[in-house]
Amino acid sequence: MNWHHIISADQFDCDSIKELFELARNIKKNPGLFHKDLADKVMFELFYQASTRTRFSFDLAMKKLGGRVIGTENARIFSSATKGETLEDTILTITVGLEADIIVLRYDKVGGAKRASQITETPIINAGDGPGEHPTQALLDLFTIQEELGRLNDFTIAMIGDPYHSRTIHSLARLLTLYKNVEIILVSPDEIGLDDETKKYLHERGLKFSHSKNLGKTLKKVDVAYMTRIQEEYFHNPEIYKKVFGQYVLSSKLIPSNLKLIMHPLPRKGEILFEVDKDPRAAYFRQVNYGLYIRMALLKLISDKV
Amino acid sequence: MNWHHIISADQFDCDSIKELFELARNIKKNPGLFHKDLADKVMFELFYQASTRTRFSFDLAMKKLGGRVIGTENARIFSSATKGETLEDTILTITVGLEADIIVLRYDKVGGAKRASQITETPIINAGDGPGEHPTQALLDLFTIQEELGRLNDFTIAMIGDPYHSRTIHSLARLLTLYKNVEIILVSPDEIGLDDETKKYLHERGLKFSHSKNLGKTLKKVDVAYMTRIQEEYFHNPEIYKKVFGQYVLSSKLIPSNLKLIMHPLPRKGEILFEVDKDPRAAYFRQVNYGLYIRMALLKLISDKV
Amino acid sequence: MNWHHIISADQFDCDSIKELFELARNIKKNPGLFHKDLADKVMFELFYQASTRTRFSFDLAMKKLGGRVIGTENARIFSSATKGETLEDTILTITVGLEADIIVLRYDKVGGAKRASQITETPIINAGDGPGEHPTQALLDLFTIQEELGRLNDFTIAMIGDPYHSRTIHSLARLLTLYKNVEIILVSPDEIGLDDETKKYLHERGLKFSHSKNLGKTLKKVDVAYMTRIQEEYFHNPEIYKKVFGQYVLSSKLIPSNLKLIMHPLPRKGEILFEVDKDPRAAYFRQVNYGLYIRMALLKLISDKV
Repeated sequence: MNWHHIISADQFDCDSIKELFELARNIKKNPGLFHKDLADKVMFELFYQASTRTRFSFDLAMKKLGGRVIGTENARIFSSATKGETLEDTILTITVGLEADIIVLRYDKVGGAKRASQITETPIINAGDGPGEHPTQALLDLFTIQEELGRLNDFTIAMIGDPYHSRTIHSLARLLTLYKNVEIILVSPDEIGLDDETKKYLHERGLKFSHSKNLGKTLKKVDVAYMTRIQEEYFHNPEIYKKVFGQYVLSSKLIPSNLKLIMHPLPRKGEILFEVDKDPRAAYFRQVNYGLYIRMALLKLISDKV
Repeated sequence: MNWHHIISADQFDCDSIKELFELARNIKKNPGLFHKDLADKVMFELFYQASTRTRFSFDLAMKKLGGRVIGTENARIFSSATKGETLEDTILTITVGLEADIIVLRYDKVGGAKRASQITETPIINAGDGPGEHPTQALLDLFTIQEELGRLNDFTIAMIGDPYHSRTIHSLARLLTLYKNVEIILVSPDEIGLDDETKKYLHERGLKFSHSKNLGKTLKKVDVAYMTRIQEEYFHNPEIYKKVFGQYVLSSKLIPSNLKLIMHPLPRKGEILFEVDKDPRAAYFRQVNYGLYIRMALLKLISDKV
Repeated sequence: MNWHHIISADQFDCDSIKELFELARNIKKNPGLFHKDLADKVMFELFYQASTRTRFSFDLAMKKLGGRVIGTENARIFSSATKGETLEDTILTITVGLEADIIVLRYDKVGGAKRASQITETPIINAGDGPGEHPTQALLDLFTIQEELGRLNDFTIAMIGDPYHSRTIHSLARLLTLYKNVEIILVSPDEIGLDDETKKYLHERGLKFSHSKNLGKTLKKVDVAYMTRIQEEYFHNPEIYKKVFGQYVLSSKLIPSNLKLIMHPLPRKGEILFEVDKDPRAAYFRQVNYGLYIRMALLKLISDKV
């Protein structure tokens, strides 16, 4: 794989993921060895949608490698975007004009990162394009499974909550097709079951998946529970949101002994009770930490190639 | 005292204040000796309420010690808070996930910093919790008195403006109970006299205080004038605000020769005329500078303990 | 010239511009020689109006010189300005209190930078004061002409779009009076022709200028085309804006062979078609890059004097 633009989970194969994970593990073990690797490099953060978690994570990753960060918390409100500038002009300003070495872009519409990557040689990292993709989240989810479960083949995962809108479910499910003997059970109300495009993708690649409406029964059959928030912002009809919200809530007593790992891309909104945090299998805050090292490794691999 | 979480002015005693002030003085004299002391440490700034002055001060303090700063100008608007995340989850994300070394938190409700300190070992510094406390402001106020007046015992201070709402008056008054022979005269309209809780605190510790409605007469009896802004944002009834606003304004001709020091936590809104700025006793901008060194000393003491 | 406060294009003469350009050229050639020149200096960015391009450019310029940057994206919304603080108090807080070495100020009213410069010795750089001036933009425009056209004397320039509201046209036109045998042709609808003040300034200094309404004919007579956006935000009457918007649009087929350089201060809003970007004479993104080095040179010249 070409470590250049990072636009979609689809661009990764097993070898490139292995290379990334090894480097991430290495950096986590010996961060001091890497703290000047990106000295004098400048990363621009362009966030057209608010995101503290992802922005902080990239920001810290770059600084821990000795690099510099320039950015804006909300490109939509605080940029010349308000004067009508296109994304393309903003990207050319930053690349040609300000000599950006890497751009981390969160855009509010599908395809933003791809559009940016088509007009510049400067590496673009997609940090989310509306309901589209968020590939670094999928990679950190996968890395969490590898590190906490100890394997990426031969396991069963429940994906719970909002499989229809969750871009992290879409992207992680796609990455899982690269591995052997993985099975997905989707748990959600009928209204927000997995979308047809992802279903087709999984089907074509032979990944076994099924639907269930019973959380308790499903958890007894899986190794990993991947919880997601019902994403209110994408519901056009508030009545449907009201109906589906709060149907699946993970409490301590629901967690069976066979379950080995509880994940969530965060933020949560009630779907995991706070009491669960004390369970050693609850990995959602550690997941953020795996993300930090995945992003450090990614920034380094991209920079080494430029 | 334990240099760890900094939540309330109440946690300080004379010895710890002396230790802090000596270090602050030392850093101010030889800043070059300390410019790498916090290298590789990362401070997160979480501001749920706007504050240029305090944020800039902590930001600069950390950078002058060689440390890194990651933060958001308005955590309420630009964070996953808008998706309904609790303060606790945000704190765990930053500590467990992003390995924060120190968190500076301004929250918009009383008790925010305390809640944060209860779920993490990472030091939390309270940079204001709504109308609650703002301990580093109280410490820098006290440091200003020490450096400009030359003593913390045996003096009289007028606290003027809005003793009811001003968290800096509340916190500074509490700190003054640690010293001997200090007397406070509060000058304000009846509607916004000192609150009962602070009165009780001072009374129990034997600090002598009284009320006056005459600014000119009071100034003739004190060493220090501590002016405050009438805090419009806390008045439910705009009629009362209109009535009390503008009653006490400090002009050059009101300043008697016995007065040795004029302070204000800033921003001001007309209660000190600009003509007063030229008076060498007007210390409110120098006060900001004392704050910078107090915060550097605090960050260093906390980091040395971790 | 005194390299201290940078308030207006009028304060520059040919010698100081030559000194600035030589240093900018030098830094661009050997950036590594300058990467610690401003180590330990702190630049404060105070932006009362949004501006990604200018803020990023100063931010990067300072960091490439090894300096530190502290700032706010929108001082009007996120500062104590909301509590009613004057610009003067904010400036004194940052200079006396926070020991700023340089302040970059974008203010939303004419005269902001001048007011700031009158109360402090700390160098103030005007990064735009409403419809007033934006001197570093004028300098980078001039530097672009020097570097791309190869001369500052003996050329003809068309200034197209909104000569009435464009502060970059006002400032660049003023700077051009310093050079010999320069001619300006203004192309715009009658409603937004050049303002009387700038006309008077040019007239008094003997710079030849004329008006035209025909873009095609004018381009055949000039060396440089300087396009500008019609600035909707300054039109009180939306009917007039509708009438004048979109009258002059630069397409590839309109560009004659005699034209040597196409400039735009950006952002654009349709007045240059995207197809023009491929033309090697289209310099508007390179213009941003010249700006980066002009600002680095400026920060260095100012700092060397302090």
